[in-house]
Amino acid sequence: MSLERIRVVLIETSHPGNIGAAARAMKTMGLGHLRLVRPRYFPHADATAMASGADDLLTRAEVYDSLPEAIGDCVAVAGASARLRTHHWPTYDARDSVRRLLAVGDGPLAVVFGRERTGLSNEELDHCQWLLNVPANPDYASLNLAMAVQVVSYELRMATLGEGAVDSPQPEPAPAAELERFYAHLETVMVATGFLNPDNPRHLMRRMRLMFNRATPDQNEVNILRGLLTSVERLQSSADEDR
Amino acid sequence: MSLERIRVVLIETSHPGNIGAAARAMKTMGLGHLRLVRPRYFPHADATAMASGADDLLTRAEVYDSLPEAIGDCVAVAGASARLRTHHWPTYDARDSVRRLLAVGDGPLAVVFGRERTGLSNEELDHCQWLLNVPANPDYASLNLAMAVQVVSYELRMATLGEGAVDSPQPEPAPAAELERFYAHLETVMVATGFLNPDNPRHLMRRMRLMFNRATPDQNEVNILRGLLTSVERLQSSADEDR
Repeated sequence: MSLERIRVVLIETSHPGNIGAAARAMKTMGLGHLRLVRPRYFPHADATAMASGADDLLTRAEVYDSLPEAIGDCVAVAGASARLRTHHWPTYDARDSVRRLLAVGDGPLAVVFGRERTGLSNEELDHCQWLLNVPANPDYASLNLAMAVQVVSYELRMATLGEGAVDSPQPEPAPAAELERFYAHLETVMVATGFLNPDNPRHLMRRMRLMFNRATPDQNEVNILRGLLTSVERLQSSADEDR
Repeated sequence: MSLERIRVVLIETSHPGNIGAAARAMKTMGLGHLRLVRPRYFPHADATAMASGADDLLTRAEVYDSLPEAIGDCVAVAGASARLRTHHWPTYDARDSVRRLLAVGDGPLAVVFGRERTGLSNEELDHCQWLLNVPANPDYASLNLAMAVQVVSYELRMATLGEGAVDSPQPEPAPAAELERFYAHLETVMVATGFLNPDNPRHLMRRMRLMFNRATPDQNEVNILRGLLTSVERLQSSADEDR
């Protein structure tokens, strides 16, 4: 599983609660490897509280003295950056970044997140192959650390799942012949009730067909509709008898 | 701007801090319209604290007594669901869902989020055209409310930005002729230093070309490299003089 290759590296995180929330965000998306560079407080009760069931990631977290040590074994390194820097570093959005990352051959892959207030220093960016930017509202780019980790982890999961991430219950449309019997039945009833002019049924029937075709009813739904039509017919014939 | 059309609807949120964090998550991605159905506590100091600069969304938030009222003006409604239900409701992942949502013609569009613990009831799902699922780790699908709002808001923003969300500083590669002069210069110096066998330079030069071509150096970088080569030549000739 390629998510196994990912290392999330947090540099000098000030608030231990953010470390815990980041661990939780990672685990919800199937990431397991957290590395911390000079965390201000770690371990810490706030980190454990915010991890909320993802404390196994905290227990296994590796703590380093410097970024080069933390990424020493990594074959590709992307640095998360909230700012769009005008110079030097190639920058890709989160989606593009994770694709590039996962396309790199064997070995661990790092995504590096900087300090809550000041992000990554230029010296740290020198260790990154490119910058990863989560496109945010330019008027309010206040994406906090754990939220950024959540979005990037989500993109990593989406990239490994590929298309069709969700197995939607597949409707099993009724066969065309069943639908035709239904349309015939519907037309009969519509004529019988006087709703449809039998001399010119085309336009209205076409509208009905369009609508039901869009709904792609399954066999059970066709049965329900036909049962309804039959009950209308019964009503009709009992009304005829009463006359 | 199509993000203007989006209404985020939170149903019976228990913790006001989650309302604030959701507002912040929305605003970072450029969403502005929050609707609350029977919030347990609202307004509340925790909501304002967690909104952290997105309190304008809280001030403008609309509070409703029921989901049908909250979505009354909406032309499409997607219901966020953590569980993958086996029956009835068509389900699309967050990315697919937001595309479908934004493809619906004029009018407000709703994404509905249920209670922190129990999500949306079946009666509430009856008001949704489809379910939106954020694909999560099946062993730990503990995506909290604000994190789910963050991911969906992010997908909405990405869908409206389209490709090329990030304006990466474009490298301006040096013209091929400049690169050729550099390669010639490099070969000369490599031969002069004795590193390259002049009778069979091909293989090593090809490797050098491959590497520098991957780097697509710009004119400034080519100038630096050639300056370096020139300084090596000077060293070489002074060494020759010393002999």
